[in-house]
Amino acid sequence: MKKRGIGKIALLLSLTDGDIAKLKKYYESKNYVIYKGQAGSMDAKKIVAAIETAASREDIIRENYHEEHALYHAIIEALSGYCRGQVVLGEVLRTAGLTFTIVRGNLIEDDPTSGNWISVVLYGQIGSPRRGFEHEAVGMGIQPI
Amino acid sequence: MKKRGIGKIALLLSLTDGDIAKLKKYYESKNYVIYKGQAGSMDAKKIVAAIETAASREDIIRENYHEEHALYHAIIEALSGYCRGQVVLGEVLRTAGLTFTIVRGNLIEDDPTSGNWISVVLYGQIGSPRRGFEHEAVGMGIQPI
Amino acid sequence: MKKRGIGKIALLLSLTDGDIAKLKKYYESKNYVIYKGQAGSMDAKKIVAAIETAASREDIIRENYHEEHALYHAIIEALSGYCRGQVVLGEVLRTAGLTFTIVRGNLIEDDPTSGNWISVVLYGQIGSPRRGFEHEAVGMGIQPI
Amino acid sequence: MKKRGIGKIALLLSLTDGDIAKLKKYYESKNYVIYKGQAGSMDAKKIVAAIETAASREDIIRENYHEEHALYHAIIEALSGYCRGQVVLGEVLRTAGLTFTIVRGNLIEDDPTSGNWISVVLYGQIGSPRRGFEHEAVGMGIQPI
Amino acid sequence: MKKRGIGKIALLLSLTDGDIAKLKKYYESKNYVIYKGQAGSMDAKKIVAAIETAASREDIIRENYHEEHALYHAIIEALSGYCRGQVVLGEVLRTAGLTFTIVRGNLIEDDPTSGNWISVVLYGQIGSPRRGFEHEAVGMGIQPI
Amino acid sequence: MKKRGIGKIALLLSLTDGDIAKLKKYYESKNYVIYKGQAGSMDAKKIVAAIETAASREDIIRENYHEEHALYHAIIEALSGYCRGQVVLGEVLRTAGLTFTIVRGNLIEDDPTSGNWISVVLYGQIGSPRRGFEHEAVGMGIQPI
Repeated sequence: MKKRGIGKIALLLSLTDGDIAKLKKYYESKNYVIYKGQAGSMDAKKIVAAIETAASREDIIRENYHEEHALYHAIIEALSGYCRGQVVLGEVLRTAGLTFTIVRGNLIEDDPTSGNWISVVLYGQIGSPRRGFEHEAVGMGIQPI
Repeated sequence: MKKRGIGKIALLLSLTDGDIAKLKKYYESKNYVIYKGQAGSMDAKKIVAAIETAASREDIIRENYHEEHALYHAIIEALSGYCRGQVVLGEVLRTAGLTFTIVRGNLIEDDPTSGNWISVVLYGQIGSPRRGFEHEAVGMGIQPI
Repeated sequence: MKKRGIGKIALLLSLTDGDIAKLKKYYESKNYVIYKGQAGSMDAKKIVAAIETAASREDIIRENYHEEHALYHAIIEALSGYCRGQVVLGEVLRTAGLTFTIVRGNLIEDDPTSGNWISVVLYGQIGSPRRGFEHEAVGMGIQPI
Repeated sequence: MKKRGIGKIALLLSLTDGDIAKLKKYYESKNYVIYKGQAGSMDAKKIVAAIETAASREDIIRENYHEEHALYHAIIEALSGYCRGQVVLGEVLRTAGLTFTIVRGNLIEDDPTSGNWISVVLYGQIGSPRRGFEHEAVGMGIQPI
Repeated sequence: MKKRGIGKIALLLSLTDGDIAKLKKYYESKNYVIYKGQAGSMDAKKIVAAIETAASREDIIRENYHEEHALYHAIIEALSGYCRGQVVLGEVLRTAGLTFTIVRGNLIEDDPTSGNWISVVLYGQIGSPRRGFEHEAVGMGIQPI
Repeated sequence: MKKRGIGKIALLLSLTDGDIAKLKKYYESKNYVIYKGQAGSMDAKKIVAAIETAASREDIIRENYHEEHALYHAIIEALSGYCRGQVVLGEVLRTAGLTFTIVRGNLIEDDPTSGNWISVVLYGQIGSPRRGFEHEAVGMGIQPI
């Protein structure tokens, strides 16, 4: 099998319905640190905060600005992809309900020379704040850490 | 199993290494029209053209402006997510090598009331035009058709 | 006379001071559905909401996501043109007072082969929240429906 | 009749098919300087150049940087509205064929206290470089001069 | 010594720690009008308002729309540079603490033919709303006035 | 004297006319790696390339993707600030002539706990490709490395 990148690992975890335990364990055995959570809001900053809080609480990043900066930029890139352009939600009357997946480890599976990176994937629904008036969106940010 | 959206179907096809025949056949049996191809360039318009050409050649869209417009907007949204913001590649000295997946069919699997939509997913590498100086990116656009 | 596009029809209705009854009737006889209303706010989402509400109430769009999505994208494109770039108002201390015009029908007058489209035109004032410190702006979005 | 703004004057001239002589003369009698021309390209800089050249040749702006800067910003704002967001054409495989209208004079008709401004309106078609696969677009920029 | 531009004058004043009296006096003797103040917020409009208020109170601009428009555009350009792209702060969970410097006068020092311009420079910190999790940013806008 | 940030160090070097040897030596004694060069083009990618080439040649970054990625993002943020929004030059008929300054070292002077960062500052002229029809611009990007 072709070696996977940290982005694909995060995407596969994002797209797995229900129990991710097996996939998570497999990549943890390859020294990846993994967390999958949920967030939903018309307010983009609440989604940013939910991901930052989870990353700190789960010890995915160390409590220094160097690492927090890498995480923040990965989140904003992921949100930018999710929003397809301008990073605004409620300001243009739309809302997001999504799962976020944070993965930290080698840029390329089984390749320690590829260095330490962090990937954030957002996958979920975006749309009008009316049930059923929404479609899927995805966004991914990758940063060296 | 939870019903999948047209975006997840396109994402799963994008992320499958090697033979997609089985997954493709499964969703074709549910009336989805599917195509997966490859494109790589520093020139964003060549990527747009490759996808538009494939969609016409494979009869995924009918040759009218109504459908071409839906496809075009799905492509630009996907590229915008892939580029995370401004849709430029070579202009800022970066290049993309990617697979594109086009899926046409119901917004939600097995739900004809959800209507006819088109999804374009781009997944691949983005980075400096130097081998190995690149990381993964993903983008998805979804439009009614 | 040259055949008009759905955009020009919406622009002409937007620019007409006072009574639009005659122009409206003329285009309604050509199967266009037309509505002209007013909105003003420092909050872009209130402008989006005013247009969406009017479109539903006046039966310009059917209550399904397919059509709501087309309307929403036409509104956002119009707002993007109105704001000339980033779709923000109060966030950068500016406000908008405008008329919005929604037109649904053929892309090109008297040409049923051009298909069914929706056009949203915003025309009005944009500026600082101080009377007289503002100038005109215009924006138009056109989507297949 | 309500006093018109410089933007509406430029918009009305843009939307007039055929001979604009009568309308032009009317506003020239109110000290507006007016020019209407045409440009078409996949290359945004050629459209900018066509408008700048016309403005110089027709003596709408004086040959100093102060005035050229005002014109340039009015053009870019108009293009930004025309493109609805990112100011790119051929880079994302689209082309524009348009009329541009430049108007210089009071911000508000018959109100010399409103000062001297310049308005640029672009109105025309935008779309794929295939005949008939295009729809209308409009953009307007207004700057003090 | 090479003649300085109005931007460099504003930048040097921005970067001077402590007392700017000497530098200010030097440029005031060359007919520049200068003000340096402070603003900090997660809310971009409060920063815009602080600068506009200071410019009015200090008589850097006259109370007409022509001049207010030039100032506003200089501020937005400076903010856009400070934010490096999208002009949003709290919406993406970041905050700014900065000094702003407004300079009005010739575009080029000792060159009255270069005309009257206004420059706004923002220099300070941008980052997460947590002490020490921030880095420097700078932005400059220049407009004819 | 207040401790300076890596951004201010790069800005001061950028704004120094003529010989920067003394200032450079002072910060090199504090373990900063510094380079100041020049670039000018209507083509943004040539400016990116000039800075990347200088950074490699002067051993400011190590030849791995981790560090090249940090440099690239710092350059693009600086260009984004310089262009105030969309990172395009010739595409909208403008050109840039600038000095670039690269500084690598502690985020805060004399504070090794602040970690290793890279700052890129662009300062120069931006404008129409006609001599004298241009004004100053500045942009700064800061990334952990």
